[in-house]
This record gives sequence, structure tokens and C-alpha cells, in this order.
Amino acid sequence: MADKAQLQEAIKTQGEVVRKLKSEKASKEEIDEEVAKLLQLKAQLGGDEGKHVFVLKTAKGTRDYNPKQMAIREKVFNIIISSFKRHGAETIDTPVFELKETLTGKYGEDSKLIYDLKDQGGELLSLRYDLTVPFARYLAMNKITNIKRYHIAKVYRRDNPAMTRGRYREFYQCDFDIAGQYDAMIPDAECLKIVYEILNELDLGDFRIKVNDRRILDGMFAVCGVPDEKFRTICSTVDKLDKMAWEDVKKEMVNEKGLPEDVADQIGEYVSMQGGQDLAERLLQDPKLSQNKQAYAGLTDMKLLFSYLELFQVTDKVVFDLSLARGLDYYTGVIYEAILSQTIPAPVSTPTEQNGADEGGVSVGSVAGGGRYDGLVGMFDPKGRKVPCVGVSIGIERIFSIMEQKAELSSEKVRTTETQVLVASAQKNLLEERLKLTNELWNAGIKAEVLYKKNPKLLSQLQHCEETGIPLVAILGEQELKNGVVKLRNVASREEVDVPRADLMDEIKKRTL
Amino acid sequence: MADKAQLQEAIKTQGEVVRKLKSEKASKEEIDEEVAKLLQLKAQLGGDEGKHVFVLKTAKGTRDYNPKQMAIREKVFNIIISSFKRHGAETIDTPVFELKETLTGKYGEDSKLIYDLKDQGGELLSLRYDLTVPFARYLAMNKITNIKRYHIAKVYRRDNPAMTRGRYREFYQCDFDIAGQYDAMIPDAECLKIVYEILNELDLGDFRIKVNDRRILDGMFAVCGVPDEKFRTICSTVDKLDKMAWEDVKKEMVNEKGLPEDVADQIGEYVSMQGGQDLAERLLQDPKLSQNKQAYAGLTDMKLLFSYLELFQVTDKVVFDLSLARGLDYYTGVIYEAILSQTIPAPVSTPTEQNGADEGGVSVGSVAGGGRYDGLVGMFDPKGRKVPCVGVSIGIERIFSIMEQKAELSSEKVRTTETQVLVASAQKNLLEERLKLTNELWNAGIKAEVLYKKNPKLLSQLQHCEETGIPLVAILGEQELKNGVVKLRNVASREEVDVPRADLMDEIKKRTL
Repeated sequence: MADKAQLQEAIKTQGEVVRKLKSEKASKEEIDEEVAKLLQLKAQLGGDEGKHVFVLKTAKGTRDYNPKQMAIREKVFNIIISSFKRHGAETIDTPVFELKETLTGKYGEDSKLIYDLKDQGGELLSLRYDLTVPFARYLAMNKITNIKRYHIAKVYRRDNPAMTRGRYREFYQCDFDIAGQYDAMIPDAECLKIVYEILNELDLGDFRIKVNDRRILDGMFAVCGVPDEKFRTICSTVDKLDKMAWEDVKKEMVNEKGLPEDVADQIGEYVSMQGGQDLAERLLQDPKLSQNKQAYAGLTDMKLLFSYLELFQVTDKVVFDLSLARGLDYYTGVIYEAILSQTIPAPVSTPTEQNGADEGGVSVGSVAGGGRYDGLVGMFDPKGRKVPCVGVSIGIERIFSIMEQKAELSSEKVRTTETQVLVASAQKNLLEERLKLTNELWNAGIKAEVLYKKNPKLLSQLQHCEETGIPLVAILGEQELKNGVVKLRNVASREEVDVPRADLMDEIKKRTL
Repeated sequence: MADKAQLQEAIKTQGEVVRKLKSEKASKEEIDEEVAKLLQLKAQLGGDEGKHVFVLKTAKGTRDYNPKQMAIREKVFNIIISSFKRHGAETIDTPVFELKETLTGKYGEDSKLIYDLKDQGGELLSLRYDLTVPFARYLAMNKITNIKRYHIAKVYRRDNPAMTRGRYREFYQCDFDIAGQYDAMIPDAECLKIVYEILNELDLGDFRIKVNDRRILDGMFAVCGVPDEKFRTICSTVDKLDKMAWEDVKKEMVNEKGLPEDVADQIGEYVSMQGGQDLAERLLQDPKLSQNKQAYAGLTDMKLLFSYLELFQVTDKVVFDLSLARGLDYYTGVIYEAILSQTIPAPVSTPTEQNGADEGGVSVGSVAGGGRYDGLVGMFDPKGRKVPCVGVSIGIERIFSIMEQKAELSSEKVRTTETQVLVASAQKNLLEERLKLTNELWNAGIKAEVLYKKNPKLLSQLQHCEETGIPLVAILGEQELKNGVVKLRNVASREEVDVPRADLMDEIKKRTL
């Protein structure tokens, strides 16, 4: 427990931080964050009358999904899962946290973004950073050498969130991976086919899938004269080419990573190359590159990969791009990344982030990525036995952002329930009869609602249907009860018809197929 | 970083702990836990040749789901979600962690079980302990006064796991809640109807739903002479009656909580009462209890609740039980809990927990619980505006445990993929033709697999179908290619028939409806 004087001091200091940021016209996001910290401190101190003041927000970089967003999320998941199942995948699940050491040494420079749990006695734990490392742990632990599985779950990164662009600290990944010793490039090609299918079916506009190979990159670094121990760190720098200009990337290589300028320039020449199978063939003729064993193997496989992609009819969207590097340490072969051409038209404001400054179109960037990681499972096996793996991860949050904005711009109303019928009454004192009929409908498997009021007005019952899109109303009155019928009303057309109570279930089913 | 000598000392100490437990014949679970700690320490020190030794396990109290378990999980979720949707619920999602203070002061004595995240700068965060408090935070934050929603997600409790009984530290909750100002007991009755439906449809054998009311408990404590400030803590003790005998509960009340013995005895009389609507009526005549305002209100509502439960045809399983207390602080009215009569026949062994000592039948205990919490949302609202809520949480892990054991005992094979057809060949050099046909099938929406080998043997292709339950094989050979046909084989009957390539999709669809 911090004592009161300390807290007041901390509040004063934090207040100055906020004032400074405001005077410097810092971004809304930055200011909001510091204001939230200030409010938290104030809350610790207690409110005016000692009443506890809550900071009503979700944790930084996270969000709730409201029912409309959930309806969209379900639609997106269904498309993705259908594709995974079409390709014969099973599914698994792993815990949200792992032993800390399971994640150690797998993510290179990104390791600093891992969330740790507090040491409350017992094991040291961290939230999963991706689904790939837990998958490898799962394979090694259960001695599985063959599996094709998908896994859809949330992962956690203490990154700088940019939520209007769909970048969160808690976000979903949809992973598909193939583990097993197989003939070269066949599973790799299937992963790319899946990305192609999913992005097509989600109907998000044009896209490209960049492909490269870690062995080609390493070979390229070697022939350009990068020292071995700098391969990974230079690889991280090359990975920034999608966000930074070559000039800035070069600066980082030379000034921060200590690469001679001529070495950087040679890399610059290679990483500007893009093409298809033809480029792989051309580079196989490159006198320097083809002499390097690694590069030669990578280029030969790239050629083979494109021949399979041809059979899978996806080469119109796939580009062999030597600038693609991907940050993670564990890749050993083919790597890829899918990019949407579309930009997000106008950022959706959320309560915690009303980014007024940023109203132009925003590129959503990468929406899927993956590659081959033949060494990862072996890192977990006591005897180092390898299980070759290749996989792809669909970055679903950016896709949600786009779909949400599409839904907002469209006039079509998103239904958030599936209720087929509301049981209603125009008269008083019929609650018991309404509950009895509702119960009959539930027991018959019909999705039915009833207002939780003793004597609701007919108008408010009809309004509930209009608002939530319930298509039918089953209306009970003294007369209907006497005649053994129910008045069935079509909400849209306002037509009403008396249906014998015994036929009601069939009639509702027929009308709401 | 701990230094080497310190580590070696810690390993020595931990080794003694393990030896001591073994000599004392402690439970397998306890020993396993201490062994795991020992291995972790050894891993920190490094293996024999300085090679890093991994502890291959999931965090304590957590587990992976393999594809078979996932297939069962999906089935259970489908039943539960169908029921929620039948009752007109929408769905929402909230982040896995909340600001720490959001969870503070909501769980009474259970608060010590909350997982905190490490302070890595920024906000103080905790993993959610249930879905109810995040739901209340969501309502207050978005000023929602009316919603019927379900939420299915994992929650986290640093409890002592007993995994053979389906008690985990990471586990799913399936919550259904109704928020809004409504007429008494109508939403409450619907929650009980839902529990009844779900437990019936899951087909887990007989069950009972105990019902009570916090106001009846509080009134009872008052008339028995429990001081006001001890209501909550005595409530926690009463809650242990499902695991402890009355004698032990009484001891805790008297010795630990300082209650006079005659007060405890009076409580003992009340909490032994069970019944239905009749008991509510009888207690309304109880001269002491009926004089207490709280108890009177609770008993009147209980009577009303049972009249609605009668209409919903669920009274055969519902018992008004004065011993039901439920531990959580936030309940204000009706509370309930569902208990399966069935015991788990034989614990399933998992790699981390082979509980040899505990081979008898194990009662799974509570599988659903909930109640009314009218004050919780107001705790988050700056002006204290209340939103009355009632809900139920299905404790799915115990249900999974039972379903898994049922599946294991049954001879029926659980399929983990939905693949309709395997594209195969008996001849060499047909990889490209196989890939081409597979691609055609995928494009037609058919779930198809192909082995990732250049020249797989026909036998191993057929074996793959047998193992994974794929019902059809599409066989390509030189002859078939020349004739423009595909040989379609039924795996079970071994019948083969030549199908013109143009008709193949329709034929597969027809056969795998």
C-alpha cells in the first residue's frame, strides 16, 4: 500500500506529465494513456467523500466486442474455419499462459513485448505471444510427428497499439499448420492456397502475397559480406522495409548495426527485386548467389513452390519478393505475408481512442503471414528430434476493422439474435398464458422471447421486434385462448392470421426457414 | 539472474522437499508439483553439457485440448449456445485481463485466487476471475440498461487444481445473463429453465438445481443473532456445507468466526431444510423469520419463482434449499446451483496427473450456478445507478470430463476432421495430377486431402482414410486420366466405381450429405 503523501506526490507529477503532453500537442492516444494513469492514481487515493472512483475502461490496447461486432466476428470465423476444414485440419487448444521459459529465446528482438504474470509463488508464467510456439511445445510434449491442425485464439503483445488500424495488445490469431516429414514444398503450397482462398472469400478487395525464403536471405547476407552473427539482426532491419524507406533501413544497418556501407548497398540491390518463378530462375544464374549453398537450396525450392502454386491457380496474387524478411527468429525456410491493397477509409472512433488527427485512408498492411520453421519443435525435444513444420497465421483484427466499417457504411441491419417469434399479448393479466406458450415453443426447439413484464403494452412488444429484427409475433388474447388459436403476425407486412395452437410450431418453422 | 551457487542451494533444498513428500507418501499430485519445481530449477542451471533442458509441461492447473477433446468440446458448446440462442440472447466478448481495481472488492474471500500480471510499466492488470464482473463493467462503461447476452470464455483462478474432477486454474465459463428493470422473478425463472434444458440435452444423468435467496439467508442470520458485520463471512462458511459435514461447518463458525454456539445451532436448524413452494409457504408462517423484512421479501419472491417454474415445467428438478449460500459477495437475491447425481467412474490419467490413489467414483459436484446481483453494475457507475441483473454460469470443464470418459468407454470413434475425400494414386509420377484434382475439389467447396508425398503407396493412402475416417477415395491412374474418369472408392465397403470427371463433385456431395 502506497501511503497518502506518496500518492499525492505521484498525482502531482503525473498531472504535470499530462499538461506537458497537451502543451506539446502530443497525439490523442498518448494523452489518453497518461490521463488514464492519472485517474488510476486518483482512484487509489479515493474520491471526494472517500467514495471509490472507478476508472471505467478496458486495459490499454484491448477492447470489448459488442453484439454487432460479435455477429461480424462470427461471420469471419466461419469463413476461415470452413477453409481450414476444407483442407482437412483438426483443431487443438492450449492454455493462454505458458511457463515463461517455454517462450524464452523464440522471438528475437520482439521478446520484450511478452506479458509476464506476477510471481505469486509457484511457476513463472507468461501470456502466449503467438500460437506457434505453444504448438511446437504441444508437439514435443506429446511426441507428435504428424498433424495438420488449426487453432483460433487470442495472443498478447505489449506493443504500441494503433487500434484504428486494427492493432491491439490482445488480438486473435487464426493459425493453420502442417507438421511432418514430407516432400518439399507441397504443404507450403497448400498454406498459400489457404491464404488465397480466405482472402478471396472475405471479399476485402485486391491483395498480394509476398513470398521469400530465409535461406535465400541468409545466402544473400553471406555473399554481400554480412558477418554470420549479424544475420538475425540485419534480418530484423530488412523486415522494416514495409514501413520504412530503403534510405532509413540502410541508415539503421550502417549506423546502428555497424554494417559497412558497401555491404548495405549490395543488400539494397537484392531486396529491390520482385518477380515470380522467372526471378527464381534468374537468381539461380546469379554467379554470386548460386554459389552459396543455402541460397541455392532456397531458390530451387522457390522454383518448385511456384510450380505447385501454378497447379493451385494462385500465382496471380503471389510475388517472390526479396525484401520480405519477417521478424521472428524461428523461421528456417519459406516465409510469406499477405497484404491488402485497400485502405481503411475513415477510422472508427472508440471511447478510448478518438483519433481526430488521422482521418485519411489508412493502409491496413499485413493480414496474414507465416512460413516454415523446421527447428522449433526440436528446441523443445530433450533429444533435439526435429519435426518440420510450415504454417500460416491470419491476422484477424485488421480484417474485423475493415468488415466493421463495411457494415457501418452499408444500409443492411446486422441482426444480433436469432429469435424467430415474440410471444405477446394486447390484454392484461395474461402473463401466465404468455409464459406457458413460450415454454411450449422452447420445448419444440423454437427460438422465442417474451417480455419480462406482467402487462406490457402491445406497442412496446411490437417495437422490440422492430428493433431486434424478430420476424413474427404470436399474440394471445382472451378470444384466442377460448378459440384454441394464436394470432400470428408478420412484423414486416403487419399481416395477421389465426393459427390453431396445435399447428403453431409447424407454421413458425415454415415461415422462418 | 540467480547466481549458480544460489541455484545449486535451491536445488538441494527442493530435492529434500521431494524426498520428504515421497517418504510421507503424499499424493501423486503434490509430489508431481514439487518435482516440476525441482526440474525448473535444474533447467535454470542448464543441463549436463550446458545444453538448456526444457520442462515440457503446461502451467499448473492448465491443460491442452487434443483434437478428440476439441471435437467433444465443440459438441458441448453447440448444445449450450443453441439453448442460449433459443432464449434470444446476443453475445459479447471482453478482454482476458481487466484493470486490477475493476476486480477489487467483488469476490470476498476468493480475491486471493486472482492472477495478477507483472508490473511491466503502465496499468496494473489482473486476469478475469469470472465473466460477471467484466459484464457489469461493460454495462456501466457503455451505459447499457437492458441486455440479454451470453459469453463463453476462459476465466482464471489460482485455486488448488483437482484435474481428474475437472477442476482447473484455467477453465471455461458459459454465462447467460439478463440485465434490466423487470417484473419480479420472470428473468430469474428463465435462467433456471435454461440450466434445466442444457443439463437435459447434454444427457449427463439425473441432476438437481438447488435454489435459495441471499435475503432469506441474511434474514435467517439476523433472526438467529449473527452480528451484521459477520453476515458475509458466515455466508462463506455455510457455503462449505456441500463439501463439509455440519459438525465441521459449525466448528468453523464457533472457533474461527467467533459465533456463540447457540447461534450456530439455530442456523443449523434452518440450513437443514429443503422443499419446494410448500417450504416457502411454511417459512412465511415462521413467527421469527416472517418478521424479518429481508426474509419476508425473499420468501414471497421464492413462492412466485416456483409458480413460474411450474409453468416452465422444471419443478421436478428444483429444490428450495436453505443451506445453499454461494461464496461470491455480489449476489443480492435468488441464488442457485445445479448438481449432477452421477459420479465420474474412473479418473482419466493425464501426463501431469496420474492419480493412482483415487480410483473410486468421484462426485463432480456443481456444474452450474448463478443468481441475482442487482448492485454490481452500480459499483461501477460514477453515480451509482443500478442495473438489476440475474444470470447463470455453466461450469463446462466438469461436463467435458464426463463427456470425455463417456467417449472413451464408447466404441464409437470420434472423428476429428470433416474430410470427405482423399485424392490418391496407385501409380508413380502422378503428384501433379493429384494436386490438380485436389485443387478442383477445393474450388468446388469439397473437403479434400492429398498426401504430401511425390509417390505414396496406395496402401498408406488407404490407411490414412481408415485412421481418420475419410469415407471416400478418388483414385487417379494413367488409364483413368486417358478415359477422363476418376475411380471413386468407398472406404468402408471397398466398392469402386469409375465416375466421369465432370460428375465427380456431384457424386461426392451426394455420397457425403
